[in-house]
Amino acid sequence: MASWIGEREIEDLAIGAAILGSGGGGDPYLGKLMAQKAIKKYGKVKLLSPHELPDDALIIPSGMMGAPSVGVEKVPVGNEVYMSFKGLEEYLGKKAYAIMPLESGGMNSTIPFAVAAQAAIPIVDADGMGRAFPEIQMITFHVYGLKGSPMVMHSFQGDYCLIKTTDNYRLERISRAVAVQMGGDAYVAAYSMTGKDVKEMAVPNTISFGIRLGQAVSEALERKENPLDALINVTGQSSYGRAIVLFKGKIIDVEKQIGSGFIRGHVSVEGFEEYKGKLLNVYFQNENKIAIVDGQVVASVPDLITLLEKETANPITTEALKYGYRIVALGIPTPELMRTEEALKVWGPRCFGYDINYVPLEELHREYYLRHMF
Amino acid sequence: MASWIGEREIEDLAIGAAILGSGGGGDPYLGKLMAQKAIKKYGKVKLLSPHELPDDALIIPSGMMGAPSVGVEKVPVGNEVYMSFKGLEEYLGKKAYAIMPLESGGMNSTIPFAVAAQAAIPIVDADGMGRAFPEIQMITFHVYGLKGSPMVMHSFQGDYCLIKTTDNYRLERISRAVAVQMGGDAYVAAYSMTGKDVKEMAVPNTISFGIRLGQAVSEALERKENPLDALINVTGQSSYGRAIVLFKGKIIDVEKQIGSGFIRGHVSVEGFEEYKGKLLNVYFQNENKIAIVDGQVVASVPDLITLLEKETANPITTEALKYGYRIVALGIPTPELMRTEEALKVWGPRCFGYDINYVPLEELHREYYLRHMF
Repeated sequence: MASWIGEREIEDLAIGAAILGSGGGGDPYLGKLMAQKAIKKYGKVKLLSPHELPDDALIIPSGMMGAPSVGVEKVPVGNEVYMSFKGLEEYLGKKAYAIMPLESGGMNSTIPFAVAAQAAIPIVDADGMGRAFPEIQMITFHVYGLKGSPMVMHSFQGDYCLIKTTDNYRLERISRAVAVQMGGDAYVAAYSMTGKDVKEMAVPNTISFGIRLGQAVSEALERKENPLDALINVTGQSSYGRAIVLFKGKIIDVEKQIGSGFIRGHVSVEGFEEYKGKLLNVYFQNENKIAIVDGQVVASVPDLITLLEKETANPITTEALKYGYRIVALGIPTPELMRTEEALKVWGPRCFGYDINYVPLEELHREYYLRHMF
Repeated sequence: MASWIGEREIEDLAIGAAILGSGGGGDPYLGKLMAQKAIKKYGKVKLLSPHELPDDALIIPSGMMGAPSVGVEKVPVGNEVYMSFKGLEEYLGKKAYAIMPLESGGMNSTIPFAVAAQAAIPIVDADGMGRAFPEIQMITFHVYGLKGSPMVMHSFQGDYCLIKTTDNYRLERISRAVAVQMGGDAYVAAYSMTGKDVKEMAVPNTISFGIRLGQAVSEALERKENPLDALINVTGQSSYGRAIVLFKGKIIDVEKQIGSGFIRGHVSVEGFEEYKGKLLNVYFQNENKIAIVDGQVVASVPDLITLLEKETANPITTEALKYGYRIVALGIPTPELMRTEEALKVWGPRCFGYDINYVPLEELHREYYLRHMF
């Protein structure tokens, strides 16, 4: 059902999308400001379910690519994504029926609302991952057969690039090199598709789910209830799957490298409460990819691994990780569309250099999930 | 005066342009084949002097960029430059009156003829350097105020890129990164301009001069005369200046690195004949940049430094340099347009990392030039 998204919903979405972002997707605060500013100026944005799209409608996914930590220091002017969206529309010679996020994540879930408000078109309640991923071919649209090109990129310095390639891996290589030269990040429009494609290939209802997640957290905080319990309950009523607490502890080490358009590294967490005496290591490449407790894998990509501030359940992006934070590590099962054999070839643990097979959260934590089946 | 260029003239131009290319500009043989094949198929190409162009005519410069040695292993399909030329024409929404080389050099002087023949338009007898240079802003068009963008790039794998930037240094950075991802080299169209721009900013008559140089060499060889003397005599009757023999000897060392879209290194030459007991070192970045004999600079960029096979006066590109070659090192004064204060800020020795001031060949070798003044 179509609904209208205003500043209040963006506030909630910024929290929920950062949880789904698994540490990636960019700074939620910046994306929120951009979306709220545009909504204040141009009015609320209509959110459409995939099934409400005409089959032949042109849908243009849009967002930011690059190492998100660079974006934190380099505030976007706000118009770059709009220009990429309009640039691709112009190149295709057809008006877009709606915009859609490429991924779920702090910045990439909210920025498309700024474009939608300015262009006065609806936004589709779906995306190509239901989480965040670091590379342009790591998206259901690629897995299920779409071409990412033509792709339009803009930098905040005013650079423009239109790229066409014969395959999506070449698109990743060329656009990544451009993003690096654009200053580390870029604003892009790619994977233009039809309404029919959206229904067949996108992960549905990820925006409304992000809003529900954020609402659960902020309402619990208002009522002085435990925001973590509220959050976990909401995940249990979604196409994802019930979240599980993987660890609680204090960050004792963070190691980060930024280069080639990515942020890579790991964070070490010393357990407390029932995790006292244990050590959690989370390895990330833009997003959290593998969580290991005392040598044992407790969650791995494509399942979602999100670190939250313990008291507020506020999600922490990889670039914001700092020594001393008291955190809860949460695992969320990824939707089924993300777990097919074709999909795991594109974003299974080995695609990021980890020599392990993917085991779903529900199997790694069989007892917990049996207990919560009903 | 307009003239018509056929396969015979391309044969000569390939030699002459490689001499002007100062070791860069790509493999003359490949460019020659591409141009001759196109001329055989589509007919001769009309060569226009800059003054024959209407002031408002659209002129599109076109050629190859990247580390030319990669091109040697990866034969271009032949259509990439044409597609870049047509791509830029299409983007600008206007038919080009003529094509023009970006630089003088083995491949980049002849490839535009393949485009001209296929597009059935004339080629302008001029370019933006009168030699070869490694970077996209190292061109008179940039020095005298033109923007390189919009720029269209094609790879032989079928990738396409349209780039627009606010300045030419950003264009260099972004397009270089794209060229590297395209496999090391790319085929480009950039610096679109008017006929009036050509008259004010291009180095004139460089194609016809290249043909004359090549003719002098091949005619001398046919008549069993010394090709080097013939070549030097022709340079004396041009807007360049009389060439000077800097060294004769045998290559005893070549050191080359290919990376970031460039080929860099140096060649050491052990003197013979009147240079016996002396050592020449030539440092190159795509093209030869500095020639030093026993610690003394004998020629530096932007003057031309060309290594020729001693017996045939056949120019040797940097990627073809090999141990054992018996060579003559030739210096050719660059045209005055290339020596202005603004110009030297863009391609003086310091722009390539050499901590020396530019001293013109005529001052470095005052006695020789005084002797040949009349």
